[in-house]
Amino acid sequence: MAQAEAVPRRKILVAVDEGDESLYALSWCLTNLVSHHSKDTLILLYVKSPPAVYSAMDGTGYLFSSEIVAAMERYNQQVSDSVMEKAERLCAGFDQVVVEKRVESGDARDVICQTTQKLGVDLLVMGSHGYGMIKRAFLGSVSNHCAQNVKCPVMIVKRPKSTT
Amino acid sequence: MAQAEAVPRRKILVAVDEGDESLYALSWCLTNLVSHHSKDTLILLYVKSPPAVYSAMDGTGYLFSSEIVAAMERYNQQVSDSVMEKAERLCAGFDQVVVEKRVESGDARDVICQTTQKLGVDLLVMGSHGYGMIKRAFLGSVSNHCAQNVKCPVMIVKRPKSTT
Repeated sequence: MAQAEAVPRRKILVAVDEGDESLYALSWCLTNLVSHHSKDTLILLYVKSPPAVYSAMDGTGYLFSSEIVAAMERYNQQVSDSVMEKAERLCAGFDQVVVEKRVESGDARDVICQTTQKLGVDLLVMGSHGYGMIKRAFLGSVSNHCAQNVKCPVMIVKRPKSTT
Repeated sequence: MAQAEAVPRRKILVAVDEGDESLYALSWCLTNLVSHHSKDTLILLYVKSPPAVYSAMDGTGYLFSSEIVAAMERYNQQVSDSVMEKAERLCAGFDQVVVEKRVESGDARDVICQTTQKLGVDLLVMGSHGYGMIKRAFLGSVSNHCAQNVKCPVMIVKRPKSTT
């Protein structure tokens, strides 16, 4: 256990979303990476779809009124709150870890990469999916994109079939 | 430190090759993942090109005589020994970790995935490259392929620019 002293304080970014897999990734990270490193900072990042998505869909002029846009944003906010709440609950037993929450808006692939760079993160942890199946088919997997583009180590965690 | 007792014994496969990045990945793994888990098993996997590669290139009938094939295999063996020696040296300070060495032959992408499955590995650690630039352009990155195909968590470690 002599090496314990040599371990630096790390900044670990965990990308969370509404899928169970990202929470499994957080849980894996807590069990396998964080528990013995009392001074780590865990940054929980949730990326909302940008409001521009609704404007772009508003081609008919009345299908997406400002009320509907507001309702969708409220719903988005609720989803974001719910994800963050679940993620925080998972971290609850790890008193020694500093947990920071960040909610950003934009394309998850770009925002995760940019935030990782901007904050000088030591490790990015994420589930292997992150988009729905159809969006993934067009845009590719978020984790693949991030693994190729961020400069720090990337941990891609898949949820085992047996726990689904 | 109460959580230390709950951490299971893990089987971690580290794919090593002649590139410095894979040894950096091993080093990262030792510092960030292994040091506090005394009972982990670290499997160092080196994948040699299969002998079939030479047979396929042997179109002229004399360019690759059996002597040349034998010389290439000896060279391959030397590279493999050298990589494993460096990797073992990195592990030297971690007496509590069980280190196993495996040398397999075949396409690195397939062999890494198959070995990970076969051994029931808990975590696969690898550098982000693994092929030379030209081969990667045709075949895609080894780490991308493995991240998509293995079922366990995958740790992709990039060597920071500053250490090159």
